[in-house]
Amino acid sequence: MFDTLWTDCNLATMREGGAAYGAIERGAIGVKDGRIAWVGYAADAPSEARDVRRCDGAWITPGLVECHTHLVFGGDRALEFEMRLQGASYEDIARAGGGIVSTVAATRAASKDELIESAARRLAGLTREGVTTIEIKSGYGLDLETELKMLEAAGDLASRANVRVKRTFLGLHALPPEFRDDRAAYVQLVADVMIPAIATAGAADAVDAFCEGIGFTTEEVDYVFAAAREHGLDVKLHAEQLSNLHGAALAARHKALSADHLEYLDDAGIAEMARAGTVAVLLPGAFYFLREKQLPPIAALRAAGVKMAVAGDCNPGTSPMTSPLIALSMACTLFRLTPEEALAGMTREGARALGLLDDIGTLEVGKAADLAIWNVKTPAELSYWIGAPLLRERVLSGRVV
Amino acid sequence: MFDTLWTDCNLATMREGGAAYGAIERGAIGVKDGRIAWVGYAADAPSEARDVRRCDGAWITPGLVECHTHLVFGGDRALEFEMRLQGASYEDIARAGGGIVSTVAATRAASKDELIESAARRLAGLTREGVTTIEIKSGYGLDLETELKMLEAAGDLASRANVRVKRTFLGLHALPPEFRDDRAAYVQLVADVMIPAIATAGAADAVDAFCEGIGFTTEEVDYVFAAAREHGLDVKLHAEQLSNLHGAALAARHKALSADHLEYLDDAGIAEMARAGTVAVLLPGAFYFLREKQLPPIAALRAAGVKMAVAGDCNPGTSPMTSPLIALSMACTLFRLTPEEALAGMTREGARALGLLDDIGTLEVGKAADLAIWNVKTPAELSYWIGAPLLRERVLSGRVV
Ligand SMILES: [Zn+2]
Ligand SMILES: [Zn+2]
Repeated sequence: MFDTLWTDCNLATMREGGAAYGAIERGAIGVKDGRIAWVGYAADAPSEARDVRRCDGAWITPGLVECHTHLVFGGDRALEFEMRLQGASYEDIARAGGGIVSTVAATRAASKDELIESAARRLAGLTREGVTTIEIKSGYGLDLETELKMLEAAGDLASRANVRVKRTFLGLHALPPEFRDDRAAYVQLVADVMIPAIATAGAADAVDAFCEGIGFTTEEVDYVFAAAREHGLDVKLHAEQLSNLHGAALAARHKALSADHLEYLDDAGIAEMARAGTVAVLLPGAFYFLREKQLPPIAALRAAGVKMAVAGDCNPGTSPMTSPLIALSMACTLFRLTPEEALAGMTREGARALGLLDDIGTLEVGKAADLAIWNVKTPAELSYWIGAPLLRERVLSGRVV
Repeated sequence: MFDTLWTDCNLATMREGGAAYGAIERGAIGVKDGRIAWVGYAADAPSEARDVRRCDGAWITPGLVECHTHLVFGGDRALEFEMRLQGASYEDIARAGGGIVSTVAATRAASKDELIESAARRLAGLTREGVTTIEIKSGYGLDLETELKMLEAAGDLASRANVRVKRTFLGLHALPPEFRDDRAAYVQLVADVMIPAIATAGAADAVDAFCEGIGFTTEEVDYVFAAAREHGLDVKLHAEQLSNLHGAALAARHKALSADHLEYLDDAGIAEMARAGTVAVLLPGAFYFLREKQLPPIAALRAAGVKMAVAGDCNPGTSPMTSPLIALSMACTLFRLTPEEALAGMTREGARALGLLDDIGTLEVGKAADLAIWNVKTPAELSYWIGAPLLRERVLSGRVV
């Protein structure tokens, strides 16, 4: 006896290796105790269920997985965006207090409740489009107290917004102003003080860093990743977004869950990622917002069998995006992924990038019953429409939320 | 005595020639009999109103005006989008029945109710983001019966979705298959039969055409515009999207309300538009979806004093976009409009492009009380966020809808 049976629907199970989208047309899905208990053709479905929900031919996909966001932050950068479009230079904006330091200042000044409040408004944009799992990074505190405040706020969003939350400590996001003249001391603080404290508190699942000319070097990242590993935390890396520092290869050598952005990734990096099973997380929102021209090496990643996830990267400076469906559109239109690859990138591969593929990311018996139910005639519509209200129902652990 | 007073708000009146956005901070707006009766500082507002609505500091803009859409059509082209991303050529797609002819076939086959039903779903995307006026073009029938069916469906959406609708007859959209070998006969049919019939029926306010190498020549457009003018209809033109046929100049000589797209517009065309007061309608969604590289000549349009509107161009082939806020984002991020220009483009200038500026498009006493009320701290946020749920309340003729 199922708790709920969804029927009169089509399923994009996103299981690998079968039909496109792992599709089961005229399917049904039975849920028991929050988990998927049965998946198959409606004609074969056992009919006993406390609640039978007919879907009028809608498509059901796994609940969407946003595997890379900076959802929690103070303030926003809309006025900086406006200044730039009015012709202001980076110096003008810095003088006006803009840039990442303005977000750090606003985040430090905000209470935990204020951070939850503003992040919840952004999260509403994601959940109204089917997101059931989200990764949220810290990284606008750059001191232990504020980083913990951000991570706690991120954790509190789970029950508040009915989503699963994975938390990532992003200490190496930027050099805090108070360490301007001693970057080594900050890196050491992150590795030797913050990571142990965060690991002990159970405040994060993984450690991330921004490896870039304007961020941190591979040596600095290497040092911090070693500390993360020592404390039992996963690692992942912002790599090769604006230049090629060979960060993805470093990340792969640390068995990173993912390397993210990757516009400037080279063949050697691809080979290391393939070897390690490190997922390539593609972030077309930042590419769009920064008007980048260099595309990530999609065809080479595909050829090497590197798994590709897609995420929105919601953040105030380079991707103020709160729509997974627009991320799908951009993944196809700008990055030339197929609609099936894009959707896999926000379901199965997003789950893989978070180390959660055993539990979510596809419609398979035994996994959590996280579903997104869509008013579409074909799953390609999810990447085709731009800004359309397509979600019919969102389900977390078998419960319509 | 107002029917309603909105207070505790900031107003982006979008009046020309004053503060940025025509802003009145800590403002109020009083409405009587569906029209704006008072606009000013809250401290000065008469307090008598049947209904006082406090807005918690939200910003109120004029209701958004989508001045260029093809919202009514049968089917969609998601599978064609998918085929193209899977590597299919234009010939493959044509063989599979794709392209505009597939939309023409689906539109001819659809009943008026089916057209209303599918367009209403798309329109829901627009109204949930503050649209109160929409222009809808025909052009997927290419025979009188189906063109009239589309225009009637467009008209029926007004009451169904609580929006103002302006209707445009786009007979010269594509050559219908049955006229493949006699384009002159089709152009003559449009000018001599369809336009008189549509004018007599009062089924459209304006006539549009697709002036392009793959569309219609300036001579053909000229002939049809003359007929439109003779029957008292306004004209507007899809011009210079993919090449420069000098369509905008032709449109301006016909005193067109607008010339739209304009990526390949030259200085002579700009000068003619400026002289005639023809509005430049910018359509960044099509630019995005087609991955165009040639930007419209924004700086030159600005310098010449040509008014710039922004619209979403919702259509199945080149801009399946149903979000005015994404159009604002793209207008700024891709076309480099300022947030103020972009918002003006979807309010004041959108209204001007429809010949409705006397009645809507700014918050001024005497105009219709069409409002969009936004949960933002600054109007720049409307173009900054990508896909965020920002609308708090939509008001048509003084009524919350
Ligand atoms: Zn990031
Ligand atoms: Zn158009």
